[in-house]
Amino acid sequence: MMNDWKQDQLQVRDRIRKGDYTGPTAGLLNGQTQANLVVLPKELAFDFMLFCQRNPKPCPLLEVLDPGSAEPVLTAPKKDLRTDLPKYFIYRHGEKSEEVTDLSSNWTGDLVSFLLGCSFTFESFFLQRDIPVRHIEEGVNVPMYATSLECHSAGRFEGNMVVSMRPIPEEKLTEAIQVTSRFPAVHGAPIHIGSPEKIGITDLDKPDFGDPVTINDGEIPVFWACGVTPQLVIMKLKPEFVITHAPGHMFITDKKDTDYFLL
Amino acid sequence: MMNDWKQDQLQVRDRIRKGDYTGPTAGLLNGQTQANLVVLPKELAFDFMLFCQRNPKPCPLLEVLDPGSAEPVLTAPKKDLRTDLPKYFIYRHGEKSEEVTDLSSNWTGDLVSFLLGCSFTFESFFLQRDIPVRHIEEGVNVPMYATSLECHSAGRFEGNMVVSMRPIPEEKLTEAIQVTSRFPAVHGAPIHIGSPEKIGITDLDKPDFGDPVTINDGEIPVFWACGVTPQLVIMKLKPEFVITHAPGHMFITDKKDTDYFLL
Repeated sequence: MMNDWKQDQLQVRDRIRKGDYTGPTAGLLNGQTQANLVVLPKELAFDFMLFCQRNPKPCPLLEVLDPGSAEPVLTAPKKDLRTDLPKYFIYRHGEKSEEVTDLSSNWTGDLVSFLLGCSFTFESFFLQRDIPVRHIEEGVNVPMYATSLECHSAGRFEGNMVVSMRPIPEEKLTEAIQVTSRFPAVHGAPIHIGSPEKIGITDLDKPDFGDPVTINDGEIPVFWACGVTPQLVIMKLKPEFVITHAPGHMFITDKKDTDYFLL
Repeated sequence: MMNDWKQDQLQVRDRIRKGDYTGPTAGLLNGQTQANLVVLPKELAFDFMLFCQRNPKPCPLLEVLDPGSAEPVLTAPKKDLRTDLPKYFIYRHGEKSEEVTDLSSNWTGDLVSFLLGCSFTFESFFLQRDIPVRHIEEGVNVPMYATSLECHSAGRFEGNMVVSMRPIPEEKLTEAIQVTSRFPAVHGAPIHIGSPEKIGITDLDKPDFGDPVTINDGEIPVFWACGVTPQLVIMKLKPEFVITHAPGHMFITDKKDTDYFLL
């Protein structure tokens, strides 16, 4: 007989669909790939896909859906992006206007959905290999920083890269680089190691998003491109209508994290 | 002092631009990445980019240009796709209508250019590592076959995968797989090894495109996704206007083949 925890895990996606679970997805269905969601009107979709194509490290595309479609046929057939995330943010003219748990009443045939890779995937490999993930140890959000690194622009989409930071012990640095190099679909190898000022970060204790974490002696700050980048780039345009997942409330695909391990 | 051959090599791109060299590009500027060109009206560009995103093995995107732009700012800044390929084919309503060496008079602000990776890149690594490339040894075109493998469709773009075949000695098979696995930007790892009938190929001596090659005892036919796939998928739609490079007459970028070696 299954214990309650396992039972809960198996049913969590049903519960999300019914609106019965509206919490964050970290730790749910471990080993199954979670994704960021961005939904844009078709008019902006070509340039946004171009932006992702030119900036695969901050914007790793797992799947782009047909205009109007809510079924991710490649990563989660039969699932529905309108109901199968626990919480969504709706933005109008660049301002957050609503937090909802079901998009059905806001959906139109004109919307294009983008699923982007998320660092949860490589963090689960870090944990398996005893590479510390400090923000998980400390029970906070990963620290994220705006940088001086410019993305390649595409149409009206332009902006600087946002990075996440994880302090890595020197003796684990090689392994952390190796593991993330094998995951190009979830941000890939670090974009910078060490001196934060070289990429325009002035104070590691004051992240622009998320929370500061402890950096111990013998640890080096390592920076990875972050999925907040495309969100900021989109919001700069103040588009009439955009939907994203609520932070931490991701889409759980049918893919396994190991499916994205590039052999 | 440079010998004539080296001098020729350095000047070949100037000569191509001037229309003074209109031949194939195989072997030119060795080590510098060559690319397939597809130019489509904007109306088809979103769905085609989606098709490439969903089928990265046959359609590895090196760069997608802004609508109307002919300058590949990421892979060859200051170059011009209208003049810097030795020969182009223009198709109207799915039929080849012209062969030209300069696109200037056919260019409009509505055209979107796609540069796709080409197997020349990994073949040059094969030669460096003594993995035989039979069609080069025999001085013919690589044999290509239509298969029963369906691509993921995108909008009106759909069709089966075309593959290229290289016979690999059993003792070199591991290395051939390793090398191409490291090159996801130029078709990546093989999509099939061995029995051709399993992917719908009935006779290796009768390729659908290119020329048959000798398969020696102790060699295994190895199949890679091929860049002819997107061309066929496009032509099925009989679009009003399409431009491609003439076969073998590729765009020479500023990138080195090693830039696409995924570490």
